[in-house]
Amino acid sequence: MSESGQFRIGVLGRGTVGSAFVQLLRRHADRVERITGLQPVVSGVLTRHGGAFDEVLEGSDLIVELIGGIEPAREYVLQAMRAGRHVVTANKQLLSQHGEELFAVARECNVQLRFEGAVAGVVPVIRVLQESLAGAQIERVHGIVNGTTNFILTEMARAGLTYEQALAEAQRLGYAEADPAEDVDGRDAAAKMAILARLAFDTPVRLDQVRYEGIELITPDDMEYARELGLGLKLVGTAERIDGGLSVRVHPLFLYPGHPLASVNGPFNAVTVESEEITEITMSGPGAGGPQTATAVLGDVVSAMIPPSTAPMATQALALVDDVTSGFYLHLEVADEPGVLASVAGVLSTHDVSVKSVVQKGLSEQARLVMVVHPVLESRFQAAMTEIGRLDVLRAPPRAIRVLEEEF
Amino acid sequence: MSESGQFRIGVLGRGTVGSAFVQLLRRHADRVERITGLQPVVSGVLTRHGGAFDEVLEGSDLIVELIGGIEPAREYVLQAMRAGRHVVTANKQLLSQHGEELFAVARECNVQLRFEGAVAGVVPVIRVLQESLAGAQIERVHGIVNGTTNFILTEMARAGLTYEQALAEAQRLGYAEADPAEDVDGRDAAAKMAILARLAFDTPVRLDQVRYEGIELITPDDMEYARELGLGLKLVGTAERIDGGLSVRVHPLFLYPGHPLASVNGPFNAVTVESEEITEITMSGPGAGGPQTATAVLGDVVSAMIPPSTAPMATQALALVDDVTSGFYLHLEVADEPGVLASVAGVLSTHDVSVKSVVQKGLSEQARLVMVVHPVLESRFQAAMTEIGRLDVLRAPPRAIRVLEEEF
Repeated sequence: MSESGQFRIGVLGRGTVGSAFVQLLRRHADRVERITGLQPVVSGVLTRHGGAFDEVLEGSDLIVELIGGIEPAREYVLQAMRAGRHVVTANKQLLSQHGEELFAVARECNVQLRFEGAVAGVVPVIRVLQESLAGAQIERVHGIVNGTTNFILTEMARAGLTYEQALAEAQRLGYAEADPAEDVDGRDAAAKMAILARLAFDTPVRLDQVRYEGIELITPDDMEYARELGLGLKLVGTAERIDGGLSVRVHPLFLYPGHPLASVNGPFNAVTVESEEITEITMSGPGAGGPQTATAVLGDVVSAMIPPSTAPMATQALALVDDVTSGFYLHLEVADEPGVLASVAGVLSTHDVSVKSVVQKGLSEQARLVMVVHPVLESRFQAAMTEIGRLDVLRAPPRAIRVLEEEF
Repeated sequence: MSESGQFRIGVLGRGTVGSAFVQLLRRHADRVERITGLQPVVSGVLTRHGGAFDEVLEGSDLIVELIGGIEPAREYVLQAMRAGRHVVTANKQLLSQHGEELFAVARECNVQLRFEGAVAGVVPVIRVLQESLAGAQIERVHGIVNGTTNFILTEMARAGLTYEQALAEAQRLGYAEADPAEDVDGRDAAAKMAILARLAFDTPVRLDQVRYEGIELITPDDMEYARELGLGLKLVGTAERIDGGLSVRVHPLFLYPGHPLASVNGPFNAVTVESEEITEITMSGPGAGGPQTATAVLGDVVSAMIPPSTAPMATQALALVDDVTSGFYLHLEVADEPGVLASVAGVLSTHDVSVKSVVQKGLSEQARLVMVVHPVLESRFQAAMTEIGRLDVLRAPPRAIRVLEEEF
């Protein structure tokens, strides 16, 4: 810390979050000084168009990294920690791809690396996993961690829009970017789940180890049948212990109305943490907007100004599990003739897939057969799907979406 | 810390939470050691029947206080801090009545005083208010912070039970104590709201400054009308800035279905924090059961084993506000004759109380008039109520329950 009772903050990046952070810090400087006893000042800002990293670093007690992406963010964060600076970042790409390297350097250099803003904006899931739940053995984390896709799915369900219409609406309202690919294909959520899984299970998890599917193929029909079956559709990230290993994945998932994530609508994010001792806790709030993420960053800065916690240790090395158990919603376009249900049911039965409920609708010579099946190993369900796809009576490839079974 | 790489924990009290804590610590000792580098051991336990406080204190690095009540808990906590020990407690009575004294001694002695378990069990509201939201100016906190009353109200709504029946059910299932007075009259929730308000607004708040009402007078009728009006009834604690002051109160409150607290059912607790920067975040989970509270206590112990944060400063002194604005549900038993609605509406209008919706039901010579009014200063609504109570057409004293207006 500088001698003067000041605490000097170097800011890297001045996009939406960077600007919001500088503004927020200015507005709350007096409160932060009352809490910490030190006056926080922005001592330097590095933008795409100006500033030199070495100078910003030299004049700072702490570096806030809000550039995003891998390089030069990674190099700057490493240099800052090696120079003895605490670092606060909201960079999910960096953490989900180079987390272990960063954590190791933070421990080695005895500096803090904080990143609440990297997942779910100001929803305090990072701190809760690292600190509040240090006394719990976590079994499962479920998260709606991408506001863009949750907004799109909410609009599809609420207003009967197609995926394309809802995406356009999200773009118009600023909830989706011009190029929404990373959001809608599930990759953004996968990066966040890699970070949450890392903390919840003390196991190194990289983005490339997370299986993900997006929402591009969801249709208004799916939504309508879901309503008939009493289900709601969300893009859900899951990280859970399975047979002594760990599964981390992101995919569309139907939820029964009683599930705590079922009522999370619009651009909101929410994370549910389950363990034997606590049953479950849920945290929800607005996803990453500029002011929300900036607030999370400032919370981290204040914590760093008061004395340290430490970078998380990777004290376990759970194996990553690929084949997990899910319920499924199965949507088939079939010939409207006798025996169709029997053939489909026969195939399912061969693969030990058990049917929970069925909706059948005739559409002249074509019919729709929609069913929900009980939880089953995904590989087994996949084999049944492949065989059903080869049936003569099928008029289109079968479609399936996972269903979260009620466990409460 | 002791020299041996051990961290010695003295436990005061061995009731439900105390026993659960000792068990939990034993189960997770290895994990805690991996996280903190120190092996946690229970070095002494003080029970009603055995142990001497001085000895437990002498042999400990940290004291966990789970006796409950004011004395001797207060004296023990003060002595422990003065002897340089960190203290973790789940004692809401103590904190809501002697918080300032305890915080002052913690600061003076440079020890940590942590109390996540005092409010909402493992729902991490204390840490989030103290740390995550240090960068936000909080405007309002809403909480369902008493599991007993939330269970009772949920059962009344779900199964049409009377208050007495639902209370008996809660007692049978262990969600209510044999003497439920402090829970059902709102005092337990008031103590917790005093603690939350203290942290959210940096203002000293004592239990005796919190206004509270309980749920003893809620009837199945209220629940039925609520359903017709699309509302759900909860016992809600509120702490909010009003005109530069602070209002802290607990009372039954109707919520519209979109409100994040509306879907919190059974013995669950939940807290919503609102501020301009973050809009709102909500945290929910099981209320204070033994294992949940013990998990919160262990999270605090782990944080204390890693280095310190500091006891909260009272840096503001907001005035406590008594008269606030609420929407109301108004239930009148009236003569079933022409002009009744007009008289009632006339009185409301005199007091500038504006009606939002009305349900009227005839019951031969008697009728029920139920309405929801727009938010109005409570004193003004109270004046209207008094005047309505004097109308000839009234067949019973008017009844009113607050309604939380949708602000989303």
